[in-house]
Amino acid sequence: MSKAYAEMSKEELRELQEQLNSKYVDAKGKGLSLNMARGKPSPAQLDMVMDFLDVLDSKSAMISEDGVDTRNYGEMDGIPEAKKLMADIMDTQPENIIVCGNASLNIMYDTFSRAFVHGIMGNTPWAKLDKVKFLCPAPGYDRHFAICEHFGVEMITVPMFSDGPDMDMIEKLVAEDESIKGIWCVPKYSNPLGVSYSDEKVKRFAALKPAAKDFRIFWDNAYAIHHLYEDESRQDKILDIISECAKAGNPDMVFEFASTSKVTFAGAGISAIASSVANLDDMRKSMTIQTIGYDKINQLRHVRYFKDINGVKAHMMKHASFLRPKFEACEKVLDEELSGLGIASWTVPNGGYFISLDVLEGCAKKVVSMCKEAGVTLTGAGATFPYKKDPKDSNIRIAPSYPSPEEMAQATDLLVLCVKLAAVEKLLEA
Amino acid sequence: MSKAYAEMSKEELRELQEQLNSKYVDAKGKGLSLNMARGKPSPAQLDMVMDFLDVLDSKSAMISEDGVDTRNYGEMDGIPEAKKLMADIMDTQPENIIVCGNASLNIMYDTFSRAFVHGIMGNTPWAKLDKVKFLCPAPGYDRHFAICEHFGVEMITVPMFSDGPDMDMIEKLVAEDESIKGIWCVPKYSNPLGVSYSDEKVKRFAALKPAAKDFRIFWDNAYAIHHLYEDESRQDKILDIISECAKAGNPDMVFEFASTSKVTFAGAGISAIASSVANLDDMRKSMTIQTIGYDKINQLRHVRYFKDINGVKAHMMKHASFLRPKFEACEKVLDEELSGLGIASWTVPNGGYFISLDVLEGCAKKVVSMCKEAGVTLTGAGATFPYKKDPKDSNIRIAPSYPSPEEMAQATDLLVLCVKLAAVEKLLEA
Repeated sequence: MSKAYAEMSKEELRELQEQLNSKYVDAKGKGLSLNMARGKPSPAQLDMVMDFLDVLDSKSAMISEDGVDTRNYGEMDGIPEAKKLMADIMDTQPENIIVCGNASLNIMYDTFSRAFVHGIMGNTPWAKLDKVKFLCPAPGYDRHFAICEHFGVEMITVPMFSDGPDMDMIEKLVAEDESIKGIWCVPKYSNPLGVSYSDEKVKRFAALKPAAKDFRIFWDNAYAIHHLYEDESRQDKILDIISECAKAGNPDMVFEFASTSKVTFAGAGISAIASSVANLDDMRKSMTIQTIGYDKINQLRHVRYFKDINGVKAHMMKHASFLRPKFEACEKVLDEELSGLGIASWTVPNGGYFISLDVLEGCAKKVVSMCKEAGVTLTGAGATFPYKKDPKDSNIRIAPSYPSPEEMAQATDLLVLCVKLAAVEKLLEA
Repeated sequence: MSKAYAEMSKEELRELQEQLNSKYVDAKGKGLSLNMARGKPSPAQLDMVMDFLDVLDSKSAMISEDGVDTRNYGEMDGIPEAKKLMADIMDTQPENIIVCGNASLNIMYDTFSRAFVHGIMGNTPWAKLDKVKFLCPAPGYDRHFAICEHFGVEMITVPMFSDGPDMDMIEKLVAEDESIKGIWCVPKYSNPLGVSYSDEKVKRFAALKPAAKDFRIFWDNAYAIHHLYEDESRQDKILDIISECAKAGNPDMVFEFASTSKVTFAGAGISAIASSVANLDDMRKSMTIQTIGYDKINQLRHVRYFKDINGVKAHMMKHASFLRPKFEACEKVLDEELSGLGIASWTVPNGGYFISLDVLEGCAKKVVSMCKEAGVTLTGAGATFPYKKDPKDSNIRIAPSYPSPEEMAQATDLLVLCVKLAAVEKLLEA
């Protein structure tokens, strides 16, 4: 039905441009004000979790399984029942878990900070090295890259594919360059692609032979349980990196992170780090100086609310029922309006919080700014790459979680219009 | 009535020793198991706050004064009503406040960490300096000293008096040594002495002329509202260090810390840092990389529970009614058993969480270990000094908050017995 733009004559393109321009002028007149910039839960999704606030009250028993009063100081590791719950979410064992505060980003930052000041397991603190480099599969999560930038860590972009990052490149680089100290990964429903690492890639990660003894995989399992579909065949599964690393003779090579920020309340959840016992013991040396303990009452609240991992899974299916229509509303418009035009490609993820859209090279910034002008805010173009520089200026991250499905359709209508306009302009300039 | 031990003959001392020894053997037989080691709230005190868990439930309005959904991401500074509450507790203004996570110790550690990796206001990061020194008024808080030790900061002990630390020494040292980057202070009901800084000393702090441009006073106002007496004449007051520093032309010289750990629940309260706007802006550069925001729901819970500072003050009077009898039970035994013997002196604080006991030089370790042997755990002797080394081996910190008043009396009975025994042994050796 639709003709690929590249096959159009200049004249056809000019005519199309005129039509699109007139539509864009109309769109600007509508006074839209929609935000698809960040992976924020919607008010409706949060309303659904309000009964979380009922589970603890003045009549509640406040003692943990191992007899600790959750209202008092201590138990830095977290209460045992919370360690078990987070271990089940992260597909590991309670002894590999420290339950922390309200945000996994905070643990990631602190882990960096510790590596810089105190070093990992007796290795030279990174602050004392001339050069520290990190591998950054991209498109990726802007806040990971921001941590690197803030600590002056040089980022090396690694291409992402639909089954994980470019392992050939990673294997080669870490083996030959001792200044490469880590890599950022979002292994499941990755931000922003929504793809999950294949078993083969996870095994290749676990078998890396890095030159740096303190090389660590920063495994941000942010979307471990964030499926969009009930049908198990549409639920991605990844291997447990911690046991894979152990099997491959690299037991200490990974720090894994997760939280319940997108499970209960964003900013009022609990987070956890998972790693080898040796790594955790190394961390505890600093953590016990940094804190007497994290918020155990909120840990207890989570355990009482969910009971166990099955409670979490059932709860996440309710989330899916809220999120799925938003994703599908966006995907429908993308499909109907952009298929076959040869000017864009996008991901159709089974979970997570994002859809990734690639437009013609050199057009992403323009598209984002045109959308903004007409009232739809997207994540800044380039944000998904180190130093906010998308070398092709083509990737756009779409966050469908906040708007309603209707708003998502409206916002995507505008987005596809801008994608088309930018494409036509580019082709006319060629 | 009682004769000073120093005036006793060897024979009298030997006789006394025999009596005391026999009492000690009896005491050991009682099978005591009491803990006066840490400033932990007692279960009864925590029971009193259980209605704190009722203020938010599934029916609650969750939007902050400025329209922010506390259940969602964002608002790194904290919600305005929580900034106001913490500002009132800390006797400063909301614009001088960032409300943080569950523990002020964590903010102090992070503030150190930032200074080490990123430097304060563009100054050289401390990690890049050959030497960083801190002044440590002592006896003081062991966890402050632990942070210094963990970061390899050299600690210089400064004597503490009943109205604050030795200002002559502090003024001289900071003026001449650029490697001195800070000082730890607990200005009100100080840990462990329970004394508060006089107005004159606060003013001298504010007027310091440090050689280091990035010298900072770490003002741990942990017991800002923790009075033991309703009578206002027995409530210590200190000057606001932030406005005093501003008046003295040193607006950026102080970081102040506080939390509600000993107001609501230990480990599930909220904390805050107070400082000049310029300092806070400098911190925000790192904090916005470290976190999207702290737990705003717990902030809201605090504000709804207390309404305002008057609610907090009324609440703290309920705490006082729990804590006071424990302090008084201890003080009564100390007074009755040790007055006039010339072998000990102790503080009688108007607030805070500790009583400080000084025994004969060289006897503190022995007393603590004898107590332990008979079932009463005290803070390790030396813990109140840098590197855990009390140069006189004479200071013992008593934490009356956890045991009941009856248990405090029992525990202090044993303590005074051990103080006497150690004194007699010392005098006999002389």
